[in-house]
Amino acid sequence: MTIPLLFPSITIVGAGLIGSSLARAARKNNLCTNIKIYDSNKNVCARVQDLNIADQIHQNLKSAIEESSFLILATPPGTIDSLCIEIGKYAKKDTIIMDVASTKASVIKAAASLPHHLYFVPTHPVAGTEQSGPEAGFAQLFEQRWSIITPLAREDEAYQGAVKRVEEFWRGVGAQTDIMDAAHHDLALAITSHLPHLIAFTLVGAADDLESVSQGEIVKYSAGGFRDFTRIAASDPTMWRDVFLNNKDAILEVLGRFSEELALLQRAIRWDDGETLTNSFTRGRLLRRAIVDAGQETEAPDFGRTR
Amino acid sequence: MTIPLLFPSITIVGAGLIGSSLARAARKNNLCTNIKIYDSNKNVCARVQDLNIADQIHQNLKSAIEESSFLILATPPGTIDSLCIEIGKYAKKDTIIMDVASTKASVIKAAASLPHHLYFVPTHPVAGTEQSGPEAGFAQLFEQRWSIITPLAREDEAYQGAVKRVEEFWRGVGAQTDIMDAAHHDLALAITSHLPHLIAFTLVGAADDLESVSQGEIVKYSAGGFRDFTRIAASDPTMWRDVFLNNKDAILEVLGRFSEELALLQRAIRWDDGETLTNSFTRGRLLRRAIVDAGQETEAPDFGRTR
Repeated sequence: MTIPLLFPSITIVGAGLIGSSLARAARKNNLCTNIKIYDSNKNVCARVQDLNIADQIHQNLKSAIEESSFLILATPPGTIDSLCIEIGKYAKKDTIIMDVASTKASVIKAAASLPHHLYFVPTHPVAGTEQSGPEAGFAQLFEQRWSIITPLAREDEAYQGAVKRVEEFWRGVGAQTDIMDAAHHDLALAITSHLPHLIAFTLVGAADDLESVSQGEIVKYSAGGFRDFTRIAASDPTMWRDVFLNNKDAILEVLGRFSEELALLQRAIRWDDGETLTNSFTRGRLLRRAIVDAGQETEAPDFGRTR
Repeated sequence: MTIPLLFPSITIVGAGLIGSSLARAARKNNLCTNIKIYDSNKNVCARVQDLNIADQIHQNLKSAIEESSFLILATPPGTIDSLCIEIGKYAKKDTIIMDVASTKASVIKAAASLPHHLYFVPTHPVAGTEQSGPEAGFAQLFEQRWSIITPLAREDEAYQGAVKRVEEFWRGVGAQTDIMDAAHHDLALAITSHLPHLIAFTLVGAADDLESVSQGEIVKYSAGGFRDFTRIAASDPTMWRDVFLNNKDAILEVLGRFSEELALLQRAIRWDDGETLTNSFTRGRLLRRAIVDAGQETEAPDFGRTR
C-alpha cells in the first residue's frame, strides 16, 4: 500500500537496524519528500552516506530535527530520557515524535519531559533480525509484521490526530497496527520476545561454560536444536540489556512462570514420568501450527527441501 | 559423493522423518540394489507405498529383515529394546545393524541382547526438522550434517569392518562422520540438542498458561523471538519423551548449569546490574558467527531480504 507524501520531512534518530530499515521503507513507499538521519557516531554517519539511504545525514541533533514535523527515535530504550530533554528544546510546535523501543511503560516515563505542544506516540514494531548497524537494514523488514502503538493518556484532538498519522505511517511501510496500553504491551512482549531472548542468551552462556564439550563440537552439532537459539542470542547486547532493565517487572513475572514449568519437567525426567512430558510437549505443535497459519513463519525455512 | 551399490539389500525399520529420508537418500545416491521399509503401522505402510520411496514395504518384521545384510533402526529410543530381541531371532549371521537414535548409552544397553554374530553400530545423525511421518522426509536431510558413531567395545576385525561400512553409508548420503564414546555423545547432545528442546517445550508451555496474554497475541507478536522456539517445540512428543528419559543424567547435569546461569541473569535484572547482562550477552554473537561460518546455518533465513 502506498500513501504518497504522508510526511513532508522526517528525521530518524539512530541509524541501526530499525532506523535504517525505516529510512529505506519510507523511501521505497514514497512516504516523505525528505528523509534525514541523525546519528551521534561519526563512523555510522559515514556508512549511512555510502549506503545512500537518506537525503540528509546529521551528526548534530539540533540541525537534524528543527525543521522536521515527524521524528522517529530508533535508539536503545536507555537513551530516550536524555534524548527527549534535547528534543524538547529544539523541536518545533506540533511535531510528532514516535519511538520504536521494545519496552513501552519505561519509555513513556522517560519521555515525560517533552512539552505538551509536542505529540509523543510510543510504538513498537515487532520485527527484527539478529543483525545491527545501518548495513543490516532492509525496506521489507516491517511487511506482514505488527506494530504496536501505546498512546499516552491524552484526550486532546491534536494528539488523537498524531496517533492516527503514526498508524498511517506504519501501514505505509507494510505493517499492521494494534493499539493497547503500555502495561499490556510490556507483558505480552515479555513472553513473546524478552523471555525468549533471555533464555537464548542463558543457553548460549551455559554451553560456553561447559568445559567437557568443546566449542567446535557445539558448532558441529548445532543442527540438533542449538542453532535455533543462537540467532536471537546474537542480538545486540546493549539494546537487550536496556530492554531487560526497562521491563523488569513483567520479565521477572514471566520468568517465574517459566522456572515453575521447567521445574515440573525436570522432576518428571528425574522420576521417569513420561506422561507429564508427553502432555506438556503436545502443546507445542498446536501453537506452531497457529504461527505458520498466521503467516508469521514459513515451515522449515532453512532446509531447502525438495521431495 | 556417490558410492555405487555399497549394500546389496537394506531394511529400514520405521518410516518416520529419518527412516523415510534415509530411504530417499540411499536411492538418490545409488547405495543399494534393494531398499525395504518395515513399519508396524498399516496406515504408514500404505503412505510409504504411495510415496514410492522403497522397493518393498513390510508390516511383518521377520520377512522384512531375514534377507537383508544391513538394518537401520529408525524408531524412537524406547523401542530399541524389544526390537533387538526380535531381530536377534530373525537376522542372518554377519548382518550390520545401525540405529539413529538421539541417545546412545541407553541404546547400547537396550541392544545388549543381540548375539555376537550380529554387528550393532550405534549412530546418530544430527539432522532433522520439526516434522514427522514418511511425507516429511527428503533426500538432502543429511547433506552437510554430522553423523556421530559410538562403536561398541568390540575388538574383533569383523566388527571393525562393520563400523567402516556404516561410516561409508553415512558419507554416501552426504554426511560427515565423527567417532566418539557414547557417554561423551550423550553429554554433547544434551547441551546442543536435548536441553534446547526441553527449554523450547517449557517456554511454549509457560506461554500457553499465561491467562493475561491470549494465544492470538502470542501468534501475532511471535516474530519478536518466540517463533524461533516453536519450530523445535513442534517436534514429535513421543520421541522427545523417550530422549529425555533415556539421557536423564546428562540432561539433568546441563539443566543444572542452565538454571545457575539463568539465576545469575535473573538476579542481575532484579538489581539493575547491566554489566553482568552485557558481558553474558556478548558471548552469543561469537558462537553464532562460528555456526554461520561452519555452514551449519545461513544468516537470517526467513526474512527474504533485498538491500
